[in-house]
Amino acid sequence: MLNLIYLVAITAEAMTGALAARRRNLDVFGVLVIAFVTALGGGTVRDIFLGHFPVAWTQHPGYLYLVLSAGLLTTLIAPFLRHLREIFLVLDAMGLMAFTLIGCNVGLTMGYEVPVVMMAGMMTGVFGGVLRDVLCNRVPVVFQRELYASVSLLAGGLFLLLRAAGVDQDVDTAVSFVLGLTLRLIAIWRGWRLPAFEEDEARGVKPQDAQHE
Amino acid sequence: MLNLIYLVAITAEAMTGALAARRRNLDVFGVLVIAFVTALGGGTVRDIFLGHFPVAWTQHPGYLYLVLSAGLLTTLIAPFLRHLREIFLVLDAMGLMAFTLIGCNVGLTMGYEVPVVMMAGMMTGVFGGVLRDVLCNRVPVVFQRELYASVSLLAGGLFLLLRAAGVDQDVDTAVSFVLGLTLRLIAIWRGWRLPAFEEDEARGVKPQDAQHE
Amino acid sequence: MLNLIYLVAITAEAMTGALAARRRNLDVFGVLVIAFVTALGGGTVRDIFLGHFPVAWTQHPGYLYLVLSAGLLTTLIAPFLRHLREIFLVLDAMGLMAFTLIGCNVGLTMGYEVPVVMMAGMMTGVFGGVLRDVLCNRVPVVFQRELYASVSLLAGGLFLLLRAAGVDQDVDTAVSFVLGLTLRLIAIWRGWRLPAFEEDEARGVKPQDAQHE
Repeated sequence: MLNLIYLVAITAEAMTGALAARRRNLDVFGVLVIAFVTALGGGTVRDIFLGHFPVAWTQHPGYLYLVLSAGLLTTLIAPFLRHLREIFLVLDAMGLMAFTLIGCNVGLTMGYEVPVVMMAGMMTGVFGGVLRDVLCNRVPVVFQRELYASVSLLAGGLFLLLRAAGVDQDVDTAVSFVLGLTLRLIAIWRGWRLPAFEEDEARGVKPQDAQHE
Repeated sequence: MLNLIYLVAITAEAMTGALAARRRNLDVFGVLVIAFVTALGGGTVRDIFLGHFPVAWTQHPGYLYLVLSAGLLTTLIAPFLRHLREIFLVLDAMGLMAFTLIGCNVGLTMGYEVPVVMMAGMMTGVFGGVLRDVLCNRVPVVFQRELYASVSLLAGGLFLLLRAAGVDQDVDTAVSFVLGLTLRLIAIWRGWRLPAFEEDEARGVKPQDAQHE
Repeated sequence: MLNLIYLVAITAEAMTGALAARRRNLDVFGVLVIAFVTALGGGTVRDIFLGHFPVAWTQHPGYLYLVLSAGLLTTLIAPFLRHLREIFLVLDAMGLMAFTLIGCNVGLTMGYEVPVVMMAGMMTGVFGGVLRDVLCNRVPVVFQRELYASVSLLAGGLFLLLRAAGVDQDVDTAVSFVLGLTLRLIAIWRGWRLPAFEEDEARGVKPQDAQHE
């Protein structure tokens, strides 16, 4: 079940990556790289950070084909996708939760301690987007946006808490997924944000950083 | 033979890196870091990604000295190098092919599947330039430029195809190298590009991103 | 002793990271990520580059809590910290030396050759700041600033030289630390810089790159 959601999620992430790349006026290859990085970059960073070799998706080339096809398709049908922003936000939220719980499982299997496991989950969830933004030369939006990475950490923490309490793993996964997804969707709907900081210097930030997304 | 071309290529890459760093007004250390990253960064990223430790060049400190000397020399003779742009383009094209085939060999030796091997070759070829551009705070030119990474993928694919067909490895390497190099040089000469995408949002991109290179 | 300085140093680095993040108008999560990356990113990059798994700090979650607490505290008391710039410069210089010598030790223990060991020390010392700047979308200041990474390399080189000469490790560590720190503080005090390069193209650099820091 988590695996099916994972497949839907990497497809959706590849499409959002391809859309972001189009906006930076990249060529076909650049679009495919950004689609790939957005979809599979989080898991890659997690595996390298944890010393989990070979990197998971390299053992499943099918994932790579799926992501590249989705990126390529997106470049063709982009004008039609403008109207689907809400659907992408929901798919992205589902992906965030699936990535987080998969990442936590990898960390647990390797015997890391609780805070490292939570970071592994969160990295899987958000680093695809961070790499996409660094390659597109902008400040990563997850550092500026409504509740996103924090929801990933909360869901990962809940998952570990229920697990420590002896809850069955499938039940645990389902509960953490649904509660995390609900919180994320409410955050989108209500525009919840973490407090940010402003100082005089902040006015020196170039305008287009603030405009993106 | 490939090894000799490799040495010429990392020297040439270090020099192009040093030239790019000068343009960003970096100090001597910054120039050397960018020279190093441009020349050896692709192989480093490939080795980390494949879990191939120790990273190849750390076993050959001579490569490091070569790259740093080339970077340092470049800062001294830069005014003379302006007129050698064509030679650098040819050396860079040879380096792209040498890096690609060496990267494919590492991936093959480690038993990865075909698409991962092609990615390993391409990463070796293009990630030095990607890291250089990220550190210099600009959108990587390989995502915006004429046929470059795509030539790397084609050469890697040809290499694997001939290998699967039972062609002798030296012959295979030579054929893939020459055909890939020819395609890359024709692409430079004729100004071939992959199609890019433009949208209304693209006009929001800051002008100097488009100007670079 | 080096360990105590290390703890002070990661705390100070986390605080400087949090201050830099505030200036980019990030939210609480973004500030914590930047604080974490600035403090523990150098060691993480070194461990991944050397193939030293598990990454050192993942075995000491206490370091993570320390860094996150320091980052969080900084966001609350930032207005008071403006007047402490000199203290931060000294703490940062101590951290640079502690990171460098710890990094050299990791490289030595793993049996790498001298130039790789020096790079491991330097990476540990400066890459936290490099990652902070890349994520904040600016050219890394260590590539533009007064003697910084070069002091790290000199201290690492001295450490290895004394070690090869048979000096007791504790004495060696103390001497390298004190001499490196002295050089760094003199460099700050006298405004020593490495020579930088200027060309006509340099004027095309956008102004805020030059303004930062």
